Amino acid sequence: MTPFKLSEELIENVQLLIEGTKDSELLELLEEVHYADVAEIIDDLNLEEATYIIKLLDSEKTSDILTELNEDVREKILENLSAKEIAEEIDELDTDDAADIISELPDERRQEVISELEDREHAKEIVELLRYDENSAGGLMAKELVWVNENWNVMTCVREMRKQAEEVTRVHSIYVVDDDDILKGRLSLKDLLTTSTRTPIKEIYIPKVDYVNVHDKAEDVAKVMSKYDLEAIPVVDEMQRLVGRITIDDIVDVIREEAEKDYQLAAGITKDVEADDSIWQLTRARLPWLFLGLVGGIGAAAIMEGFEEMISKYAILFFFTPLIAAMAGNVGVQSSAIIVQGLANDDIRGSINNRLWKEMLLAFLNGLVLAIILFFVVWIWKENPIEALAISASLIVVIVVAGIIGTFIPLFLNKRGIDPAIATGPFITTSNDIFGILIYFLIAKLIIGI
Amino acid sequence: MTPFKLSEELIENVQLLIEGTKDSELLELLEEVHYADVAEIIDDLNLEEATYIIKLLDSEKTSDILTELNEDVREKILENLSAKEIAEEIDELDTDDAADIISELPDERRQEVISELEDREHAKEIVELLRYDENSAGGLMAKELVWVNENWNVMTCVREMRKQAEEVTRVHSIYVVDDDDILKGRLSLKDLLTTSTRTPIKEIYIPKVDYVNVHDKAEDVAKVMSKYDLEAIPVVDEMQRLVGRITIDDIVDVIREEAEKDYQLAAGITKDVEADDSIWQLTRARLPWLFLGLVGGIGAAAIMEGFEEMISKYAILFFFTPLIAAMAGNVGVQSSAIIVQGLANDDIRGSINNRLWKEMLLAFLNGLVLAIILFFVVWIWKENPIEALAISASLIVVIVVAGIIGTFIPLFLNKRGIDPAIATGPFITTSNDIFGILIYFLIAKLIIGI
Repeated sequence: MTPFKLSEELIENVQLLIEGTKDSELLELLEEVHYADVAEIIDDLNLEEATYIIKLLDSEKTSDILTELNEDVREKILENLSAKEIAEEIDELDTDDAADIISELPDERRQEVISELEDREHAKEIVELLRYDENSAGGLMAKELVWVNENWNVMTCVREMRKQAEEVTRVHSIYVVDDDDILKGRLSLKDLLTTSTRTPIKEIYIPKVDYVNVHDKAEDVAKVMSKYDLEAIPVVDEMQRLVGRITIDDIVDVIREEAEKDYQLAAGITKDVEADDSIWQLTRARLPWLFLGLVGGIGAAAIMEGFEEMISKYAILFFFTPLIAAMAGNVGVQSSAIIVQGLANDDIRGSINNRLWKEMLLAFLNGLVLAIILFFVVWIWKENPIEALAISASLIVVIVVAGIIGTFIPLFLNKRGIDPAIATGPFITTSNDIFGILIYFLIAKLIIGI
Repeated sequence: MTPFKLSEELIENVQLLIEGTKDSELLELLEEVHYADVAEIIDDLNLEEATYIIKLLDSEKTSDILTELNEDVREKILENLSAKEIAEEIDELDTDDAADIISELPDERRQEVISELEDREHAKEIVELLRYDENSAGGLMAKELVWVNENWNVMTCVREMRKQAEEVTRVHSIYVVDDDDILKGRLSLKDLLTTSTRTPIKEIYIPKVDYVNVHDKAEDVAKVMSKYDLEAIPVVDEMQRLVGRITIDDIVDVIREEAEKDYQLAAGITKDVEADDSIWQLTRARLPWLFLGLVGGIGAAAIMEGFEEMISKYAILFFFTPLIAAMAGNVGVQSSAIIVQGLANDDIRGSINNRLWKEMLLAFLNGLVLAIILFFVVWIWKENPIEALAISASLIVVIVVAGIIGTFIPLFLNKRGIDPAIATGPFITTSNDIFGILIYFLIAKLIIGI
């Protein structure tokens, strides 16, 4: 496989064919292209061109393309389609993808589209999925799965499975239920291949099966699936009835989004944005954190004014405030990142006290090394060991305090049930700036002895 | 399923049973526990206790436990086992996990363990895997896979598959090769279930199959698999011969590690560390970035000394240097994070110039809002509109420059083939601090007109 590479030539070629309404050539060109790649092409076209392609290709392919498009692009294309056209796309999709797309439609349209769906059984299942929160197991699951009754034998089972398998893209496990649809266990395809056809399912199924509840959080489902290396997991309702299954490819997206969210929060971006979003969206995502930084900076300035009497004699103290603020910020971000990541991976065990001690020791060691370097730099520069001592000694204290704050805040938020990731980035930088500068001047003043 | 929850009681209970050498009770307690959970328990025990459990349980379970342990814990336990004992564990594992564990052993031990492996075919495959870089497709793949020859018919195929399936934990796709082992296509289990037994494979296989090359980078494999929603992908060598397959669960780890690495780099942590690592490891991971911050801070101090003549009359300019440094740093981190994430997801299209213009406009808008607020704050505070103007006007310029640097550096590094993630975090913060403060004083001086 030479991986597909989106080129400007290809885009231009497609645009030319659309302009010339050369439908057969366009169809031929796109036939060989995977739907995920067609989606990439469409993301780069304008709305008319995109709609042209969606209307040209048949709905078996376009339905898959729709699921892969950028959300903004999809929204606009769907606005250009009639409820009936959307329903034709939805009819081709698995219930989970269908529900995802329908949930993005405005309320009124949603009703229209659902009433236009041809397969009423499918429609019923989609409506059921729409009830669940998108960040829950119910929001992730699909209704398509292969299940057998524990009272059947292998022959009935294979016959029923063939029927069901027509609707299921990938068969992972075969779930076993009793007459009340209650999940009892699973069958592996392998076992089925190697057992005689008259054996009752009751005798060969594996009664141990991992499952999640419809209301479990998506990130918990991700944790269970990746910890136990599962490729699919059945979902049960409050009465333990089998209601759906979640496959690993949906979980890959959850894991990626979770990691990206933490990263963006650490970088001071509040909302889920992408490089191609509008300036207005990007501004809204970034400005709040910058505003926080502004408040912190004004606070730091106010503190420094409080020590103004030192400025004529000890100007050098003021020259080092950006260094102090930067170090306090960096140490805080480092400590909090380790904790946030540890919490996300369930790696953090033991008491908060131990954690704080370890972080204090670590910060002290780092601070000591840096302070010694700084001491000699300032001493040689200013030829004044007292100033050098004042600046470097307070650096150690600032670093230790920054490490403690960086460790404590995410642990505290986590205990309170708040996402600790909001504590990283600008939040911790700003508070550490203010604390850092205050501590710095207090200690420096003490040492210089004014 | 009530998800497994590691409790202090459970750990203490296990420790008591080990102390009292109550083997049968211990076996009974751990029998019901999933190997991934036993690994969590062992991570919390001391080395003797851990080794005790590994020696007590049979190698079918302990081999899986070993794969799930913390790397440090595993290393120590393996040091406590003889080459023969390790070989017994390895014999139970799939080739990919086996190769991962063997590759962690010191060179000499590695040879010993390999020579003690009982299954010589298995040993040969493991040795083959050890040749590949761990971050390549070859390093991720396993030799266990189900393949059929295009010249067989469905019946032969099913018979051969049964034999092969005994060694393969999960059957995803069945790969079709010709007489020279060259990958020709794939068969779906579904197709096999629904075709008559005399049909030749040649007639039913799907000639289109995604594959990767042994030397492809792990992150590129991850991109291909998640883009095309693949649960397994075959790996071919330079001659297009089928040599292995990669499953999605290995890719989940690659995606997670990739995201964590970017996050840690953004937070100023150079090496892959975890909260439970030793103080020495944590220090080595953090100190280099802090040192960079120190150099930046000293640079900023030197710049400020250059403007020392302004300090007696315009002390307030110096009070706002932490604010300027913080804003320059925050904007730089925000811009670079968006670019780094976009590059990781292949979302960045179009020219660098467009990207820079957009970022400039965005930074200008953010800067304008913040500068207006700051202007009024300083004006009211100091009752001096010129000073207020000098500070807030230079803030705008600083923010725009910081945005440009934050956008340009990761794009530049990426073009050069360097991981752009190193540009986020302290690297960008530090350079923006220095540039920011220099620009700030230059512009402020210009406006105040000294």
